[in-house]
Amino acid sequence: MIDNHDLVFAIAERAKQYLLDPPSGEDPVVDLASPDELIAAFDSTVGLALAADGSEPNHDNAELLAAIDLVVRHSMHTSHPRFVNQNFAGPDPVAVAGDWLGAALNTTGATFEVAPVFTLMEAAVIDRLARLAGYVSTDSELLPALPSGLFCPGGSVGTLFGLQLARHRHDRDITTRGPSGERLTVFVSASGHYAATKSAALMGIGTDNVVKVPCHFDGSIDVAELAEAIRQCMTTGGTPLAVIATSGTTVTSAFDDLHGVADVCKQHGIWMHVDGCYGGSSLFSPAQAHRLSGVERSDSFVWNLHKMMGMTQQCTALLVKQPEQLAACFATRADYLFQPDKQFAEYDSGDRTFQCARRIDVLKAWLAWKTHGDEGFAARIDHAVAMGTHTRHAIAARGDRFVTVVDGDFTNVVFVWVPPELRPLSTTDPAALPIDKRDALHLLPPAIKARMQRDGTAMIGFQPVHGMNTFRMICMNSTLRASDIDAILDAIERYGADAVGGSAESMGSTPDSSLPPQR
Amino acid sequence: MIDNHDLVFAIAERAKQYLLDPPSGEDPVVDLASPDELIAAFDSTVGLALAADGSEPNHDNAELLAAIDLVVRHSMHTSHPRFVNQNFAGPDPVAVAGDWLGAALNTTGATFEVAPVFTLMEAAVIDRLARLAGYVSTDSELLPALPSGLFCPGGSVGTLFGLQLARHRHDRDITTRGPSGERLTVFVSASGHYAATKSAALMGIGTDNVVKVPCHFDGSIDVAELAEAIRQCMTTGGTPLAVIATSGTTVTSAFDDLHGVADVCKQHGIWMHVDGCYGGSSLFSPAQAHRLSGVERSDSFVWNLHKMMGMTQQCTALLVKQPEQLAACFATRADYLFQPDKQFAEYDSGDRTFQCARRIDVLKAWLAWKTHGDEGFAARIDHAVAMGTHTRHAIAARGDRFVTVVDGDFTNVVFVWVPPELRPLSTTDPAALPIDKRDALHLLPPAIKARMQRDGTAMIGFQPVHGMNTFRMICMNSTLRASDIDAILDAIERYGADAVGGSAESMGSTPDSSLPPQR
Repeated sequence: MIDNHDLVFAIAERAKQYLLDPPSGEDPVVDLASPDELIAAFDSTVGLALAADGSEPNHDNAELLAAIDLVVRHSMHTSHPRFVNQNFAGPDPVAVAGDWLGAALNTTGATFEVAPVFTLMEAAVIDRLARLAGYVSTDSELLPALPSGLFCPGGSVGTLFGLQLARHRHDRDITTRGPSGERLTVFVSASGHYAATKSAALMGIGTDNVVKVPCHFDGSIDVAELAEAIRQCMTTGGTPLAVIATSGTTVTSAFDDLHGVADVCKQHGIWMHVDGCYGGSSLFSPAQAHRLSGVERSDSFVWNLHKMMGMTQQCTALLVKQPEQLAACFATRADYLFQPDKQFAEYDSGDRTFQCARRIDVLKAWLAWKTHGDEGFAARIDHAVAMGTHTRHAIAARGDRFVTVVDGDFTNVVFVWVPPELRPLSTTDPAALPIDKRDALHLLPPAIKARMQRDGTAMIGFQPVHGMNTFRMICMNSTLRASDIDAILDAIERYGADAVGGSAESMGSTPDSSLPPQR
Repeated sequence: MIDNHDLVFAIAERAKQYLLDPPSGEDPVVDLASPDELIAAFDSTVGLALAADGSEPNHDNAELLAAIDLVVRHSMHTSHPRFVNQNFAGPDPVAVAGDWLGAALNTTGATFEVAPVFTLMEAAVIDRLARLAGYVSTDSELLPALPSGLFCPGGSVGTLFGLQLARHRHDRDITTRGPSGERLTVFVSASGHYAATKSAALMGIGTDNVVKVPCHFDGSIDVAELAEAIRQCMTTGGTPLAVIATSGTTVTSAFDDLHGVADVCKQHGIWMHVDGCYGGSSLFSPAQAHRLSGVERSDSFVWNLHKMMGMTQQCTALLVKQPEQLAACFATRADYLFQPDKQFAEYDSGDRTFQCARRIDVLKAWLAWKTHGDEGFAARIDHAVAMGTHTRHAIAARGDRFVTVVDGDFTNVVFVWVPPELRPLSTTDPAALPIDKRDALHLLPPAIKARMQRDGTAMIGFQPVHGMNTFRMICMNSTLRASDIDAILDAIERYGADAVGGSAESMGSTPDSSLPPQR
């Protein structure tokens, strides 16, 4: 019998119970507690801190299980349908089961020797993703020994590796000799992810050499501005290294015009990297795939299956058009691990990337795909977009009590609740609002959200858009239903009224949902 | 009820069964199959590949479970006591249970808002690790809002971040403006991990600017050679940026003299990074902690709890002496995520690193520590070292049939089996052997290992050391017992005899273990 059998059994049962019957409906999305309150709560079990003097005891099972119950109680219930706070949510339970099995088998993806099945699964999933992206178009159904990419720990890391591949193609001597004297420059839209900036810092390119290209109002890149920015870079002695196009921006879920970007990149021979961390999964849906038209012309493409597809953290595919570049760029041929005289060494993937040990992120994705099939994956995307559409309609139906700042046509809706004294707003562009109105609106989302968190009613994010705090409804949570959206909007009205010192009814709200009041 | 309830339940049960009763004893460590054989096996269930034309069906549960059974059958059983192939092995079942719960709760470590408990747990574990390393010495038991580091996905990434912190301290303008014109140089021992080289490539420093400092025969750095290498760098116009000291090298588990390295670094104001990915866990044992004496003088320290401590992949702590450096070096203050007007925003850890979303790696470590206590953690290290000692004794007891090439005094033993015609070997230094003898010995470990894999008897790694293939027994697997070591040595003798065309008995072997023959 293994050590700690009873404890392990009990925790596994709790995890399974949570997985099979997660919080939903009127259950709270969060049981909010401050750091001090959490520390106090754990002090009644095993404590959060570890004894500073090395005297931490081995606690008994009852205490440990009480602590585990506190962990569950006070953690964010991302599986709850009313968790629309981020671009990930509760996981697909099938993926969780795959993740669990992978954890129990505990190996790494570096070599075929210790990961025979997972090496082939990674080839299978990467190959199919690469076909969806138009990177691979042969008829062969054989699993390639050299797949068109690999998994890596998160989208930022994927973008980092994409840019390193770009620099290696541009001048492989930089990899060996160091800086060449050129001022390498990376272009990304002003709405693009900060991974561009962080990568430029880490790669020694310098954050000043990341050009934030102006966007259209919806958050998609202005291709004419991109072309102009590249022209300016070259006339001032810079070297355009890469353009990062975004498919599904973080705030407004906008999609850059990939053909437009590809045309510009082709003209100047610039590496095109697509950050499809959020929106790349549109490729699973025949109805939505058009949003990534042109991705097949890019050189690298990063795609987070832990966002729209509900894999557990993390499940990121980095796809590359020329897979042989990976080893050329990253390999160091360590002879203690990638022994050429080892059986099946040609399948080893570990030297084609930066990491040595890699957690097995593919099993859950492969299992979910085999379980749901292509149609199931498509349905997941289509449901998310349908919920976005419902949100836009539901907000419009509430008249001047709500204003969409950026409505878009995908899964994200950016909006504000308007208190009675500011109705009707003269414009939906924050920049065009009188400053006193904009300042008043700016303060409301944090105040409303704090009340929602206190009651555990829902979790929805806010952030400045065009200079003013706005709510962001992200409709990627697969358990989200129209009734949940209505209930969240009701709650915003109710807490908004409370925040400005009135009642929702006195402010013209007629709840559109038939749900009972939130706790 | 969740979708796919029955399938999820069944897979979770299989994972739990595997966790609670993993393969052991005479069970095979691996059921070896070639890529073609694996593909054929899966073809009888759901297939490994995904339909290239988008027609992958949603398979039925029976087929899916048959595939899951194949996954388990053909995966490496790293929990088996006779898996001594790598510097990780089967996980602590308590850690697996924690990992499972974290996966079910699926959130990210970036913000307190969505990870309230885990943010505080990370502070607790990092703080305690930092105290073990001598980075923190206050009496306060309060959880710091700014802990002395954070978790990151693997040791290579930790070293990358450590070197970026070094460059940022040296010249923060490089982070913003890009290359300064200086030839920055990184020093690491010739036995150090390839993360140094890969980091230099990725950071734009250049692999030519990584100086591999000569080692003593055991694999530890020669500090006099380090001082000379730094002097040479400076006299040729280079700028020493950082020294990476290794605490537990990959092959021989050697420990660099940290005080010696620290003295050199102090003299020149050079950043000292300690790669304690493998051996850092010695700090848990009062009997072994001396090996890292001097680590308290370093600036950054990376420590993989997924190696000796048996956490699941991955669980890497990056510790930094000056924690405020993290935000200074990495932050970009994205206002959609790190809103300053959000509750408890001062606890957000996400902008203190490169990654955005981070998997919750701390829960399993915290849970294991609270379960086993400081004494349990110490016992794990002491057991591993005791098994290393047993290996050395067992090899010595077998006379001239085995030779230790590097015996060391920690968990790794590097050795060869010597066929009768080469006994006794005149020297244990491969470089001093006649070339024909060395070549003959070099071919044996792959031949022996292939036979072991075929039979699933054990998994032990080989690699060139001083120019000749040698076996590496890594005694970190917590389920490893003396009888397993004896059985593995018996098997090497048996397969060695087979490889050179005789029987073990005819070659002088008298099996030291009373175990029955391997399957």
